[in-house]
Amino acid sequence: MNEAARYSLYPMHKLRRVDNPTVRIFADIEQVREDENGYNRAVRGDFGSVVQRERARFCSKYPLGAVLRGFGSKLAPLMEGEPAKQRAPIPASPGVMSEHIKRVGYFLRADMVGICRVPPYAVYGHDSHGREIDLKHKYAILVVIDQDYDTMHRSSGSDWISGSQSHLGYSFAAVTACMISDYIRRLGYPARAHYARDYQVLIPPLLLWAGIGEHCRMGDSVLNPFLGARFKAAAVTTDLPLEPDRPIDFGLQSFCDQCGRCAEECPSKAIPMGGKTIYNGREVWKLDEERCTRFRLTNQRGSSCGRCIKVCPWNKPHGPLHSAARFVARTAPALDGLMVKMDKVFYPEKKNPAPWWFDLEERDGALVVPRSSGAVWAEPGS
Amino acid sequence: MNEAARYSLYPMHKLRRVDNPTVRIFADIEQVREDENGYNRAVRGDFGSVVQRERARFCSKYPLGAVLRGFGSKLAPLMEGEPAKQRAPIPASPGVMSEHIKRVGYFLRADMVGICRVPPYAVYGHDSHGREIDLKHKYAILVVIDQDYDTMHRSSGSDWISGSQSHLGYSFAAVTACMISDYIRRLGYPARAHYARDYQVLIPPLLLWAGIGEHCRMGDSVLNPFLGARFKAAAVTTDLPLEPDRPIDFGLQSFCDQCGRCAEECPSKAIPMGGKTIYNGREVWKLDEERCTRFRLTNQRGSSCGRCIKVCPWNKPHGPLHSAARFVARTAPALDGLMVKMDKVFYPEKKNPAPWWFDLEERDGALVVPRSSGAVWAEPGS
Repeated sequence: MNEAARYSLYPMHKLRRVDNPTVRIFADIEQVREDENGYNRAVRGDFGSVVQRERARFCSKYPLGAVLRGFGSKLAPLMEGEPAKQRAPIPASPGVMSEHIKRVGYFLRADMVGICRVPPYAVYGHDSHGREIDLKHKYAILVVIDQDYDTMHRSSGSDWISGSQSHLGYSFAAVTACMISDYIRRLGYPARAHYARDYQVLIPPLLLWAGIGEHCRMGDSVLNPFLGARFKAAAVTTDLPLEPDRPIDFGLQSFCDQCGRCAEECPSKAIPMGGKTIYNGREVWKLDEERCTRFRLTNQRGSSCGRCIKVCPWNKPHGPLHSAARFVARTAPALDGLMVKMDKVFYPEKKNPAPWWFDLEERDGALVVPRSSGAVWAEPGS
Repeated sequence: MNEAARYSLYPMHKLRRVDNPTVRIFADIEQVREDENGYNRAVRGDFGSVVQRERARFCSKYPLGAVLRGFGSKLAPLMEGEPAKQRAPIPASPGVMSEHIKRVGYFLRADMVGICRVPPYAVYGHDSHGREIDLKHKYAILVVIDQDYDTMHRSSGSDWISGSQSHLGYSFAAVTACMISDYIRRLGYPARAHYARDYQVLIPPLLLWAGIGEHCRMGDSVLNPFLGARFKAAAVTTDLPLEPDRPIDFGLQSFCDQCGRCAEECPSKAIPMGGKTIYNGREVWKLDEERCTRFRLTNQRGSSCGRCIKVCPWNKPHGPLHSAARFVARTAPALDGLMVKMDKVFYPEKKNPAPWWFDLEERDGALVVPRSSGAVWAEPGS
């Protein structure tokens, strides 16, 4: 673990490191196609015309969401490019360069930075337009941005600020990732930034291997012991020789097994209540992607949804109380059930403070106060 | 003072507020021209051909500086634009809207946000191309970004990372300011972001009136009690009705009067050692702008310079020790001289930890290890 990690607010360097992610991964994971994910199926009309129509506006129907959703496209010129013709006179040691690149990431205001090798299954076979992807970069640098605890605390997770919370993370992770990729190219090595809406890689497996978190019940998500799932990440892939981090084990598999709070509270019932299943070579809690996508896209009482992130007991402010809770989760899995009950007592949702944002919705080119009645979302078959 | 300020890491809401900035301002301050500032005079060749040539590369000769210096131009499409035709149904109260906009700024990862009325003298008469500026916006929102204490602690302030430290602040302040301006326009009000290399306003007087800091010895700079001068700011001007903050008084005028550390350590001797002088309607410590600009542009042992920011006793990590020092500076000006001496004992510069960056310089299209010998800078007359 690199010294540079100490510049994070969060002591990632103190976590237990393991050789393999805590979710079982079998050898034969197949590459997936980006054009087959929920968002792209929604664009094509696979989930019907209401979902297809709402896909274009589900985040940008809220004005701050529109700001953040539009932001990433401005960074496109920084995403990829030719590396400098001559390599810079920098140290040859992958360990030294890993430390340096992480410290650059913290300088560029990342909340966490991790590094891994890119496993072949983490590269999309085809992009969102169905074009074959040929990405051979060996390493990935993961840039993590917190979605803001106070805002999450004030929100239900599925109200009008929700899409903006996601895109806050996406946008700032994109800024730092684009800057890092530009920097590495200037040092004479190939590098490409991957961020919201233009990925050639899947972020969750890279987060697992870079030791940012463990796989959790919420579906194909990775949960960090300090931020919960309240973050977004971008990646930079590169051939600059780097020393990878190792996966972490903080006791989450047992905890999620006994908790299930996200599944209970999911407005679309997309998260499974029971145990894991084997899916494409991995033993995971398998999300019902259609229900989740439908709810987020057609939610009429808010913009998108992150209710699972909000209610998760790991979504907490950083401090000594939660350091103690993390210690118990790691060392005494028998107490996980008790911890889940204590969480409900200490963090009753009805005491949430007032929101700082205004409920607004774009309708026919103007912002209006949203209708709070009517159908909540376009359920399957509707 | 707004509740939203509490979302800053720094308790700006606890500072003493006053009706007028602590630097004396007379009624007849004249508008200044952006094309007459040091950088633009350097571009025109007013300081000779060496300075003119180095102007194009003084930050971008260092690879991370090049990344950050190039970044702001990507945000140009977000800087200004037409507001939405219809105004959003938002509260009419300027106090409520000030609180909201500040909280939006903190959500968008500002380190501090302040609001003021725009005094006419804070608007440039002409831009960097000599064109007349006609900006009538009533209010300014100031977005402050820390330049990273740890990096400043490891640097001399005038070495190879220096220009990157400045542009770290400029770039991230620009991101947040552009997002805020886009948001306000979507609410149906005019707004323009002002950030490095495309200002229509002078940032220092706006910082003074918004209560971000007091005028200090370092020239036309504003010093914040928590960050020292280790920050950069961008502004959003708007006609959205807002409630301004008030200026602050934390005892800096007496402190700077007795300190003079920045003047002692300035490599170009551009900062005055003695008392204030009256310059364009304000009683200030007047920087020798030509010496300062020349040094930053032609520094051959680094990229740009922020030595004054580095050595200032107010450049400190946030914590209880420095809260105590702030209390003494505010309440017991007779102890200012003692505090300056104690600072040298507690923070001896030779103990600085090793830098995390590599010394590199772009020469003829390739990065090389910089020459450390030779003339240090192009002094006046050279």
